[in-house]
Amino acid sequence: MDHTLTARFAHVSTATLTTVLLKKGLRNVWLRGTRPLRPGQPRIVGRAFTLRFVPAREDLATPESWSSPTSTRAAIEAMPASCIAVVDAIGVDDAGIFGDILCARMAARGVAGLVTDGAVRDLAGVLAIGLPVWCAGVAAPPSVAGLTFVGWQQPIACGGVAVFPDDLIVADSDGAVVIPAALVDEVAAAAAEQEQLEAWIMRQVEAGAPLPGLYPPNAENKARFEAWRATAAKAPE
Amino acid sequence: MDHTLTARFAHVSTATLTTVLLKKGLRNVWLRGTRPLRPGQPRIVGRAFTLRFVPAREDLATPESWSSPTSTRAAIEAMPASCIAVVDAIGVDDAGIFGDILCARMAARGVAGLVTDGAVRDLAGVLAIGLPVWCAGVAAPPSVAGLTFVGWQQPIACGGVAVFPDDLIVADSDGAVVIPAALVDEVAAAAAEQEQLEAWIMRQVEAGAPLPGLYPPNAENKARFEAWRATAAKAPE
Amino acid sequence: MDHTLTARFAHVSTATLTTVLLKKGLRNVWLRGTRPLRPGQPRIVGRAFTLRFVPAREDLATPESWSSPTSTRAAIEAMPASCIAVVDAIGVDDAGIFGDILCARMAARGVAGLVTDGAVRDLAGVLAIGLPVWCAGVAAPPSVAGLTFVGWQQPIACGGVAVFPDDLIVADSDGAVVIPAALVDEVAAAAAEQEQLEAWIMRQVEAGAPLPGLYPPNAENKARFEAWRATAAKAPE
Amino acid sequence: MDHTLTARFAHVSTATLTTVLLKKGLRNVWLRGTRPLRPGQPRIVGRAFTLRFVPAREDLATPESWSSPTSTRAAIEAMPASCIAVVDAIGVDDAGIFGDILCARMAARGVAGLVTDGAVRDLAGVLAIGLPVWCAGVAAPPSVAGLTFVGWQQPIACGGVAVFPDDLIVADSDGAVVIPAALVDEVAAAAAEQEQLEAWIMRQVEAGAPLPGLYPPNAENKARFEAWRATAAKAPE
Amino acid sequence: MDHTLTARFAHVSTATLTTVLLKKGLRNVWLRGTRPLRPGQPRIVGRAFTLRFVPAREDLATPESWSSPTSTRAAIEAMPASCIAVVDAIGVDDAGIFGDILCARMAARGVAGLVTDGAVRDLAGVLAIGLPVWCAGVAAPPSVAGLTFVGWQQPIACGGVAVFPDDLIVADSDGAVVIPAALVDEVAAAAAEQEQLEAWIMRQVEAGAPLPGLYPPNAENKARFEAWRATAAKAPE
Amino acid sequence: MDHTLTARFAHVSTATLTTVLLKKGLRNVWLRGTRPLRPGQPRIVGRAFTLRFVPAREDLATPESWSSPTSTRAAIEAMPASCIAVVDAIGVDDAGIFGDILCARMAARGVAGLVTDGAVRDLAGVLAIGLPVWCAGVAAPPSVAGLTFVGWQQPIACGGVAVFPDDLIVADSDGAVVIPAALVDEVAAAAAEQEQLEAWIMRQVEAGAPLPGLYPPNAENKARFEAWRATAAKAPE
Repeated sequence: MDHTLTARFAHVSTATLTTVLLKKGLRNVWLRGTRPLRPGQPRIVGRAFTLRFVPAREDLATPESWSSPTSTRAAIEAMPASCIAVVDAIGVDDAGIFGDILCARMAARGVAGLVTDGAVRDLAGVLAIGLPVWCAGVAAPPSVAGLTFVGWQQPIACGGVAVFPDDLIVADSDGAVVIPAALVDEVAAAAAEQEQLEAWIMRQVEAGAPLPGLYPPNAENKARFEAWRATAAKAPE
Repeated sequence: MDHTLTARFAHVSTATLTTVLLKKGLRNVWLRGTRPLRPGQPRIVGRAFTLRFVPAREDLATPESWSSPTSTRAAIEAMPASCIAVVDAIGVDDAGIFGDILCARMAARGVAGLVTDGAVRDLAGVLAIGLPVWCAGVAAPPSVAGLTFVGWQQPIACGGVAVFPDDLIVADSDGAVVIPAALVDEVAAAAAEQEQLEAWIMRQVEAGAPLPGLYPPNAENKARFEAWRATAAKAPE
Repeated sequence: MDHTLTARFAHVSTATLTTVLLKKGLRNVWLRGTRPLRPGQPRIVGRAFTLRFVPAREDLATPESWSSPTSTRAAIEAMPASCIAVVDAIGVDDAGIFGDILCARMAARGVAGLVTDGAVRDLAGVLAIGLPVWCAGVAAPPSVAGLTFVGWQQPIACGGVAVFPDDLIVADSDGAVVIPAALVDEVAAAAAEQEQLEAWIMRQVEAGAPLPGLYPPNAENKARFEAWRATAAKAPE
Repeated sequence: MDHTLTARFAHVSTATLTTVLLKKGLRNVWLRGTRPLRPGQPRIVGRAFTLRFVPAREDLATPESWSSPTSTRAAIEAMPASCIAVVDAIGVDDAGIFGDILCARMAARGVAGLVTDGAVRDLAGVLAIGLPVWCAGVAAPPSVAGLTFVGWQQPIACGGVAVFPDDLIVADSDGAVVIPAALVDEVAAAAAEQEQLEAWIMRQVEAGAPLPGLYPPNAENKARFEAWRATAAKAPE
Repeated sequence: MDHTLTARFAHVSTATLTTVLLKKGLRNVWLRGTRPLRPGQPRIVGRAFTLRFVPAREDLATPESWSSPTSTRAAIEAMPASCIAVVDAIGVDDAGIFGDILCARMAARGVAGLVTDGAVRDLAGVLAIGLPVWCAGVAAPPSVAGLTFVGWQQPIACGGVAVFPDDLIVADSDGAVVIPAALVDEVAAAAAEQEQLEAWIMRQVEAGAPLPGLYPPNAENKARFEAWRATAAKAPE
Repeated sequence: MDHTLTARFAHVSTATLTTVLLKKGLRNVWLRGTRPLRPGQPRIVGRAFTLRFVPAREDLATPESWSSPTSTRAAIEAMPASCIAVVDAIGVDDAGIFGDILCARMAARGVAGLVTDGAVRDLAGVLAIGLPVWCAGVAAPPSVAGLTFVGWQQPIACGGVAVFPDDLIVADSDGAVVIPAALVDEVAAAAAEQEQLEAWIMRQVEAGAPLPGLYPPNAENKARFEAWRATAAKAPE
């Protein structure tokens, strides 16, 4: 992960990102049903490393499959540092895709976080590892109770959203958003501007201003914002 | 909001209110799928100010619509102090109806709280405002990603329950309950009595009494309660 | 409850138990949709005492039914100390099966905990009692708003899993698992071994070992584990 | 089944029965998710003979269980002629509770029909038998793929409705309705009257009358109906 | 309804209309969960006349409410000939909004059809009337068992889609589609062209042509289509 | 497709196949939510040719994507004669994956049938083609309204079941079942035997025999069946 890029999204909320993407015509970029595992865990930014499950079939989804070349273990060993593991668990929330041992190995490899529309298991152990996790819940059963692992770095569905390898993922307390790889630059630029505008609007609201004409700003308020921004740009913070 | 009325419900739990309403034949008064946004937030009592969304259609649900005369912004400016905003988001939980700026303006206008079967966005910002919120979750996308706003102070569906403008809303850690405007007085009277009875029963349980005949009380226990109440009424608290 | 038995499961996680049970061919033993009511509450182990509801019908599900011989009150009085009450609420999450008074009486009788696929009511009161509860949520309305109680110590469905009277229940932060009564001994033995193996694997991961061949262990790693175990058994902890 | 009783409901639609029951305060009497298996199959009236399943657990839900004393086979042999088998399949629609052989045996024993919130299997075979079936769908897998049978003639949940042994069941093209055993007589009387009134209203609509004041009738139209009924009672049909 | 307009959509399938609308950026125009009540019933085209329900509350949703000024009966009397009644039943499928008598009156008033995300009741009677109906199913209970009627000719949600009074509705065997009033003309023009193109492509497929380059057509096939169209326009049919 | 193989499954119902597979430990082989599009359509047997969709993202799921090298059109041209197209539409039922033109081309290429957990569009056109289809419903919108196509001949999820390229699919009026490629021979043998046994049992039931001891057969009835089979094998049919 390019540190410059990470830095550009370090302070942009997923709420702002979805607004910016919607203005570009993309309404379906927020992963449904995945929430921070621990309130207050740090936000993450990184490239998606995708993993894919299909439903369990008893001849395939066995403890023995954990030793197969196409296993979650092999996938983890292929993850580059700073990536975000994004796991298509087809929304299954009664089997845990990863527990403490797998999360510990991801942390050891420098993975930035885990995002899934499924569940994790061994909650106490996973929290102890400290890897930031966004998931749909916690479930004791192992993945093979409901899922068969079939591969990595393919296009996936996660929480009703398409995620492709190397798309950018940003996750915070509102959940996780995917930014298509091709749009990263223009989204970063627009997001910075939107954050600045919303900060200015919040000040007006705090000063007692009513909303119509302010949020979104009409011509007069746009001019006031631009004037303030010009001044702010000159002044030291 | 009449302060006397608020005072009458200040210590009555929603659990007690649903029992009282059920005894009057109303089983469908608790709003499904709406929970306190922050554990331990204060309970609220107030008259319902209703807002209504329909699903998004791309020609209507646009960032431009936020400037229309029929916008959530205009609705907020119409809210009287002490009301509770009750929002029919048709159960959509993948778009946030309000974020920090709109919540800040509601707080500035003296709105008592927000209750919705939808989601809010910008969780960190909304928590910072401090407005008590009951909702179905948190979602980063703006309302227009999934919803079109169509008006206020109409009858609405919220969490599978009918809410009319000016019905009374009480919300606590068990969720939110609607009391039809016409029944407010008789519910207040019955609820006070029910709370007193349950407090007495709890004391008996703490003293080791078994439940049958006690909860609900048989004739003998009813007499014991009435005797205790008569004594308690005379004694200083 | 036999204290020796409880002790054997005192440190075995539900995640480990589901793995052990799956290896014996049982994939459907984790109760869906039931979570700890309070984060960090103690884990519980005990024999299931089952209760069963069917949907409400207005002629049956009335406040008067609380005084009937077939009432939740009578069921509670039949619970032995140390049992775990497991309640089939047919997944209804918009009525609370028990509130503070019933939980207080269960606690007074020495019941170890409550597990249900339904909701509890009067959250503040239930938390004050301190009885450990696993449930699907919180709802203000009383049970009769949605449910009719029909009996106890029958086979039940709870969270999509069959539970029979006297099956063993273990519940922790990952949820609740049922161990069929006939399998308790062999599961206890296998689980102890599995926990020991996983502790050894976690040490290897912390030391930087990659996952393939380690988790699950191949022949070489199995031998290393056995050697370590032999040594550990001799050495003082 | 008393033939006089069957005759009293032979021409009363389930739509009329639900209206009559609602006027007596019972809103939850129509079994959700159960439809006629074959369009145009005959309507049925009879006493409920209940069967109950819980979820499958692999140690219990086996082909061997079909030979156990508590099996669907044994339950069928206990069914009296003219009863209606009402089966609580806990809404499982991916396993078929009965196929052609079990339906053939029920037909041979004179069972009037089968009503379930689950699925049947072997559609072609079941249709060939001709037993009237109301169900939630068709699924190839045997019951033990998802269900464990636990008993008969107990109170059950079916389609979100409580059904007790010997309640009256009426099923037609709108689905199946339960009439609590204690209310059968008064419902029969009220239903006959309601059917007569609606027939008269339909004639008025066919003659071009507008609905307000007619359906339901105001005082004037009630008088017109009573006059017509008095005349009709005297005249030969 | 302007007959010229109806004629323009008389032969355009809803499948084609959704393709045309999607090319204009509207993806959410097909009403979910509403299907033809009778296979093979005629397609309908007309302006939406909207009706709106909220959930039942026992003090409001009573048989007495059928006589209120805000009743479904009054709404039906306000429907103009040739309109299509579009009913927001908030997806409730366990209560029937209309039965045979109300459908008979709509037919008598010249209403073109009924579209709802809810259910109808008294299936046999409704089929006998012959009014074309698109709905989510059939349910015996009356509307007041689950719904409270609150008004007509307001914006509504129906099947997850926004419908405004006087939008155009087209319904066929694929379901029902809404065309925003402002887009009717341009959609009619584009749809006619799309239908012609697809008819030409089908001929090519029947003649054995492979799909890539044909559907959608590349430049070469576009030219062939245009040439064919020019010829076809000159020739008698 | 090997004709001998097809012949071996030509008369074996999916109900029998699921019983045989369950006896081998496979409970999850019946595709949920996929039903015959036309009642009475012929049963099909063939090798699975898999296709995979992920959710729509507006930058990817466009009418232009239909011309991409990774398009449903290209996938269809890769299908061998006699295969069954099995399509993972992630259960999306509000967009139709294929309409009449694509079905016509599949029929022209000799594809045996289409099985999906999604919807088809242009019902009238698809029925006219005559290709046997199992699907979850009918929806007017094109695939790109809800889905992005990403590839073929990969492992997929379909109706909650794992399907791998070249697994055997059998579909009849009870739905569609997958037989893992490695188990085809042994399943064929066991299925033939099971069909013969069930035919014999049905004769006994028709002759008035009770079920316990007969279905499944106890030792005595097994002996009777074996004797009958020995005789039947010698006699001309």
